[in-house]
Amino acid sequence: MRVGVDAMGGDHAPGEIVKGVLEALPTLPEGVEVVLFGDQAQVEPLLSGDWQKRMTLVHCSQSIGMNESPVNALRQKRDSTIFQMAVRAGEGELDAVVSAGHTGAMVAACQMKMRLLEGVNRPGIAVVIPTFHGPVTICDVGAVVQCKPVNLHQFAQMATIYARRVLNIQKPRAALMSIGEEDAKGNELVKHARELMKSDPNLNFVGNAEGRDVFNGRLEVITCDGFVGNVILKLTEGLAEGLFKTIGREIAAESMELARQFEPVVRKIWSKHDYSEFGGAPLLGVDGICIICHGSSDHRAIKNAIRVAIEYANQNVNQRIIEELAQSAAGS
Amino acid sequence: MRVGVDAMGGDHAPGEIVKGVLEALPTLPEGVEVVLFGDQAQVEPLLSGDWQKRMTLVHCSQSIGMNESPVNALRQKRDSTIFQMAVRAGEGELDAVVSAGHTGAMVAACQMKMRLLEGVNRPGIAVVIPTFHGPVTICDVGAVVQCKPVNLHQFAQMATIYARRVLNIQKPRAALMSIGEEDAKGNELVKHARELMKSDPNLNFVGNAEGRDVFNGRLEVITCDGFVGNVILKLTEGLAEGLFKTIGREIAAESMELARQFEPVVRKIWSKHDYSEFGGAPLLGVDGICIICHGSSDHRAIKNAIRVAIEYANQNVNQRIIEELAQSAAGS
Repeated sequence: MRVGVDAMGGDHAPGEIVKGVLEALPTLPEGVEVVLFGDQAQVEPLLSGDWQKRMTLVHCSQSIGMNESPVNALRQKRDSTIFQMAVRAGEGELDAVVSAGHTGAMVAACQMKMRLLEGVNRPGIAVVIPTFHGPVTICDVGAVVQCKPVNLHQFAQMATIYARRVLNIQKPRAALMSIGEEDAKGNELVKHARELMKSDPNLNFVGNAEGRDVFNGRLEVITCDGFVGNVILKLTEGLAEGLFKTIGREIAAESMELARQFEPVVRKIWSKHDYSEFGGAPLLGVDGICIICHGSSDHRAIKNAIRVAIEYANQNVNQRIIEELAQSAAGS
Repeated sequence: MRVGVDAMGGDHAPGEIVKGVLEALPTLPEGVEVVLFGDQAQVEPLLSGDWQKRMTLVHCSQSIGMNESPVNALRQKRDSTIFQMAVRAGEGELDAVVSAGHTGAMVAACQMKMRLLEGVNRPGIAVVIPTFHGPVTICDVGAVVQCKPVNLHQFAQMATIYARRVLNIQKPRAALMSIGEEDAKGNELVKHARELMKSDPNLNFVGNAEGRDVFNGRLEVITCDGFVGNVILKLTEGLAEGLFKTIGREIAAESMELARQFEPVVRKIWSKHDYSEFGGAPLLGVDGICIICHGSSDHRAIKNAIRVAIEYANQNVNQRIIEELAQSAAGS
């Protein structure tokens, strides 16, 4: 198995990316190799040890900036790390690709070059949010902003398989994000998707979810369009960060001694909430393995993303997606 | 001025509602009266003091339950508190109505009986979320789940006027909820609404917002469709509650002494986050004043809702909405 990693993507590239890859190398199972894509002049000086045993470096003269238009960037930057990885994955030279770079460019490149799995209408990004009750997988969080009902149904199917196989949740409870539990609540998209999901025997469908259900332990999988999912994801990040900051400030104002005692507790809670533990979000539905990491990924997140890519392959997630979508199509 | 209050709506009705009203009575400005709608047998025993000086009680034999279909309930329960309040507001007997009951029924009844202000396409519920940087007004949070661009534009206009006049924010920064700051990001609805908002001289439009911007102090007004707004609102409630619980649990596990010291700090932060301080959400755009309170409202929330209704009237919010929408229509 060959895992491509984008050395140039993310807020802390290439330093943290290369560091994460070097940490991952000694832990790789037999037969797994890393192919690192990046600017040789910047990346090579960061490499150390006997990295050449398990890794090759592919020089790319370009990379895609966070604020570029994905369509233009992919058209013009043919030697960018993201484009090159997607091309090679499409040609079968890579089994998985990992990037903390431009999400839109990564989605577009993988969709274009790797194509979709049989039966998949649109791919969805599945983010695993750590909650007080365990991980909750939300799909989609930004790949498809305007969905059809079939997309929401397939996001639930694919995310359920991912949660089962990669997160080891036996029978993930799947819900449809809406604005009330009753059937009649929600918009037209949600009402139609609900009908599809209700009759799917492979789904452990628990009905509509509301915003508060993300954090109350009622479910493990949420499906929504990429617009709503993206708002949820960023709101969660912003609120959690803001709350911790406020609490820290209030405690420090109270007493520095109290703040000192409180610090290890905060660290413990943060670590339970740590995105990097879940190693990036898979783009479910592409014919291959595409792991999209948070822009602020550090070396641990990259190391974990590589682990997730390997697990994804070992657990035959894509084969299972093809089978369940075929069953679902035959049943309807 | 006559303010109608629904004694039967909300999780803690009629007890907390009546308590809140009784607390409000001595604080009412000259010329303001309360009209309390509810089941006489339940409400009258809760009344005390010389309430009859500033309040009348209107007996209603019905009330609308939280899980009823609003359309059916309004059709069948003509003697329900919500229907009766809306009818009297429509007839000019009440200047404002306040309820912590069924939001959907309240929106439908007020829209039907009070009608809309001149120029308003659809009304929007504007919730004020307390953040670490001050109050943020989000409109809509559930009245209109499928919006047209004009709705998002008008929600921003109306919420801006509300924030200026009732929350005393001089030049509220208004943003459009989307999934990235760039013009090209978002769905078709957002892209079209953005064009309308950009060219509106009455708006202090700061562009697109992302989920994280709700809590980072970048803005004071957010416009979005009722589906997205409702998800935001409930997610915020759920996450804040969950985080505080988790922190409390972790601290107690660390040391009970630390937990004891930490408690007043938590109480202080909670009070800054207290929804009841903002006294319910106005339904902006109806020809009258309609204040929708959280289902879990306690007496303070009801007292504050009455205060907000009075402030709304004193500040001529509706007159200002009519004027600005007319200006905007003339300019386009």
